[in-house]
Amino acid sequence: MSGPERRLLTFSAGAPHWPDEVLAAAAAEFTAFRGTGLAVPELGHRTREWATLQEEIEGRFRRLAGVPGDREVLLLPGGPTWQFALLPMNLRSPGTSADYVLTGHWARKAFDAARATGPARLAASGEADGFSRVPSPETWQVDPSAAYLHVTTNNTVYGTWMREIPVDLPAPLVADATSDLLARRLPLERFAVVYAGAQKNLGPTGLTVVVVRRDLLDRAPGGLPPILRWRDHAAARSRLNTPPTVLAWLLGRMLEWIEEEGGLDEMDRRTRERARIVYEALEAHPDVYRLPAAREDRSLVNVVFRTRDDATDRELLAAARARGLVGLEGHRSVGGLRASMYAGMPIAGARRLASFLHEFAERSPA
Amino acid sequence: MSGPERRLLTFSAGAPHWPDEVLAAAAAEFTAFRGTGLAVPELGHRTREWATLQEEIEGRFRRLAGVPGDREVLLLPGGPTWQFALLPMNLRSPGTSADYVLTGHWARKAFDAARATGPARLAASGEADGFSRVPSPETWQVDPSAAYLHVTTNNTVYGTWMREIPVDLPAPLVADATSDLLARRLPLERFAVVYAGAQKNLGPTGLTVVVVRRDLLDRAPGGLPPILRWRDHAAARSRLNTPPTVLAWLLGRMLEWIEEEGGLDEMDRRTRERARIVYEALEAHPDVYRLPAAREDRSLVNVVFRTRDDATDRELLAAARARGLVGLEGHRSVGGLRASMYAGMPIAGARRLASFLHEFAERSPA
Repeated sequence: MSGPERRLLTFSAGAPHWPDEVLAAAAAEFTAFRGTGLAVPELGHRTREWATLQEEIEGRFRRLAGVPGDREVLLLPGGPTWQFALLPMNLRSPGTSADYVLTGHWARKAFDAARATGPARLAASGEADGFSRVPSPETWQVDPSAAYLHVTTNNTVYGTWMREIPVDLPAPLVADATSDLLARRLPLERFAVVYAGAQKNLGPTGLTVVVVRRDLLDRAPGGLPPILRWRDHAAARSRLNTPPTVLAWLLGRMLEWIEEEGGLDEMDRRTRERARIVYEALEAHPDVYRLPAAREDRSLVNVVFRTRDDATDRELLAAARARGLVGLEGHRSVGGLRASMYAGMPIAGARRLASFLHEFAERSPA
Repeated sequence: MSGPERRLLTFSAGAPHWPDEVLAAAAAEFTAFRGTGLAVPELGHRTREWATLQEEIEGRFRRLAGVPGDREVLLLPGGPTWQFALLPMNLRSPGTSADYVLTGHWARKAFDAARATGPARLAASGEADGFSRVPSPETWQVDPSAAYLHVTTNNTVYGTWMREIPVDLPAPLVADATSDLLARRLPLERFAVVYAGAQKNLGPTGLTVVVVRRDLLDRAPGGLPPILRWRDHAAARSRLNTPPTVLAWLLGRMLEWIEEEGGLDEMDRRTRERARIVYEALEAHPDVYRLPAAREDRSLVNVVFRTRDDATDRELLAAARARGLVGLEGHRSVGGLRASMYAGMPIAGARRLASFLHEFAERSPA
């Protein structure tokens, strides 16, 4: 990479833009970890060096995210889809059911995984609205005997998010917060469980953070292999078996950067600022851009939009790529366009995108 | 890292020594992947670039390991312990049992995980011999109606391995080959399933390769969430959900190095040469070193040994560390000493260890 003009800026929902300084620091440390004489992938997970590093990472995550003291923090391999399966296995005691709020593509995957292994029902669904809005908590019909109530705090495919996290629900609240944890201030004390794939705001793909209230760990039934049981991972401090050390180390580098940049307050501020910049650019050209999500439920991390037709969408993608802006395709299940801006995206990146959107609209025949 | 004298040589069983040239190439590529303008962790798993890279990695693995054409190759997140659980869920059809050969610590974990979710029995056990030898295949009592017969081709904790892989067994043979796949020539056509955590010979921790005969994929019962089902991973070409891209890329770098160095023939030769060098050094001092594994079943990747007592073991560890040789502790379940030499360990590394072992023995009072 010889200069900034050769570096693309990705707005992909799956693998986000990484800050240059995190990449450079990681590349430098990879071959020689902190004067140990070992490279990062050579660090054994049973060594004192690894124990120290992992404690640092967990401690920093707890501070940054505001994790209450009675929660375990687990670092588990695999993306959040693995937790879609493990969650009901661990929390849905025999004879109980689980409630889900259906707000989009990933919420449905979570619901389907729960239905595969036992009773699950919908407490609310946004399907009738094409998932353009998140059903208001007042309308949810929660089964008070449900093992838990599952929500998706941000819907990457449809570009909506939960504005407010409700309190005093009749069942323990469980959230997939993959795409907004550490991108905005979430009141973690309101959730019995929060899990998040690291691949948006926290770093690399293939690692999931699970924050679980300690008293819930005993719900897991017998007849579950230890590796599928959160309780066993908690007791083993996420080293029940060989963990993905390189991924945990990358997560740590990203958390360090977030802390240095000002922590969660600053990430929350940047998220709002980036979204404001891009939504304003889109709204300035209502003849060119359409925004399918209901204004009040709009996600501030995934800006979902379209032009007048698929051909123009493709033109926009090509023009953006020519300007070094990539990853703007909508999810393959819905098509269209999408700008995903997670914690690592600089405000300047949002400005570059906004300039491009203005320019494209101005030269595009209405 | 300013010079070779500051670089330690690790003989750890868990996180192996990495060739310097692989580390350097990975660090260089990490921030700028092949002129794409993106860093490795920014590569989306749905992009053409990623599809190309993954095909390269799988193709190279197939060539190197000699994977028969009717096998699927899956790259799954998590260490092999995850497959201990998934294997019986996927291959043990309702009403069938699974057979296991108990040859050590990890074989027992695999067996226990199978017992947690259904019927499993032992076809053979080396426990009466303290796992110092692998029960000969002629003595195995295999249930011909078993869904499969599970073996561990190399036992890292006890330092034994299967010299020969039997043919014409009455049940499909399944192997955990985590510690010897690509360290020696294994006849993959004799196995219905072979799986291996990447963290020994193939690269990073947190990733497992599963090689499964295609016709077996249909055995998985309903009522299993897709993410726990090999068939679904196969159909989605290991991209059922967001995969651990950085780990797969590192695996690819290691495979590329193995191929450049001469492939499996050369890895097999080096494994035998390294083991010869270290066992000879140990056997030259029978008054100082003890080798608990039966000679004919000795592992050529994990050399397990002891000195006369724990205090001398600790002295040896300290003296080795002072010479830049680390990771020689035995597994925490058995204590003692162990030198693990996987594909990335140079012959010169085995020689350094042998010199040290001679020197330590000569100055150590008998």
